[in-house]
Amino acid sequence: VIVVATHGRPMRADARRNYEQLLAAADAEIARCGADASLEEIARKAGVGSATLHRHFPSRRALLEAVFHDRVEVLCAQAFARVDDADPGRALADWLRDVAAYTATTRGLARSMLTSVLDPMPESDGTCEAMFTAAGGALITRAHEAGAVRPEVSIVDLLTLANAVSLAAEGSPDAAAEAARLVTLAIEGIRP
Amino acid sequence: VIVVATHGRPMRADARRNYEQLLAAADAEIARCGADASLEEIARKAGVGSATLHRHFPSRRALLEAVFHDRVEVLCAQAFARVDDADPGRALADWLRDVAAYTATTRGLARSMLTSVLDPMPESDGTCEAMFTAAGGALITRAHEAGAVRPEVSIVDLLTLANAVSLAAEGSPDAAAEAARLVTLAIEGIRP
Repeated sequence: VIVVATHGRPMRADARRNYEQLLAAADAEIARCGADASLEEIARKAGVGSATLHRHFPSRRALLEAVFHDRVEVLCAQAFARVDDADPGRALADWLRDVAAYTATTRGLARSMLTSVLDPMPESDGTCEAMFTAAGGALITRAHEAGAVRPEVSIVDLLTLANAVSLAAEGSPDAAAEAARLVTLAIEGIRP
Repeated sequence: VIVVATHGRPMRADARRNYEQLLAAADAEIARCGADASLEEIARKAGVGSATLHRHFPSRRALLEAVFHDRVEVLCAQAFARVDDADPGRALADWLRDVAAYTATTRGLARSMLTSVLDPMPESDGTCEAMFTAAGGALITRAHEAGAVRPEVSIVDLLTLANAVSLAAEGSPDAAAEAARLVTLAIEGIRP
């Protein structure tokens, strides 16, 4: 992977080292304190100044995107791997459970995704939100076609529910299982 | 209302004044910063020292309970008012929607309730969580009896879902409507 700065050219070695140290520090601080982790503390732990942090990541959103990008990409690949499943309704439900379980144990990710939905970034193509919507969109399209999901239920709604239960389950003794259980309840509804 | 301190006797006038100033300051700070609002800031705004705050409210939980008690009591009265509804399934769903809509616009309440479920207080009779569980419990018991809700779906699960979507909707332009909409989706499930 060649790390590319915003102007599109590969970074110089020292800039790349700063970028990678910032990303590692952000990863650790967000795991400890959530999506609201202190940017000053992240810069301090990376051994750079705040100006350097802001040069690499002009906003908290940009930093959160970079921290979560690879993990979201893996979750999204799992959606595309399920897209030819013989039971599209089950494929969608299984993926949403996996997303919720993963998100419930990845501090900061649920809050980060919920904030992104409220306030999408201008260039949104490679964002975590765009990746999730595209991957889940492929599954719900097939589930809609198969008549397994009501037409008015959107993938954004279902991802919001998954992120909501993940946020709620954060901190519970078995957060992944609890989030998956609540997603199942929300998918099934309450009726017999 | 006679304000009673933990030892069970009415407070002296100066203690009661401190208590009420602390409660007003806590209410404002929690509305501004959420359930994690600074206790030091609350004491400062109430014009008392931290020791006085801790004498009245030995824990953050105790303070949150006091701040939200009356509002939760009103929501719970609305549940009991619906308990003789001819359609127990609808009564439960309507109440959950009202709870989610109210909670989505009352900063700190959703987080406070979700934390309480994970870590119930030792003397839990008058807590917000106990009030919610009792009030919702009356509605779900009738809905279970009417066959409107699957037996394995509990009121704690449904209140957790309601609080989860409220937490997720906090900050969205029409948080109350968004929370109510997502609760409806979770209650109905995704199938046609």
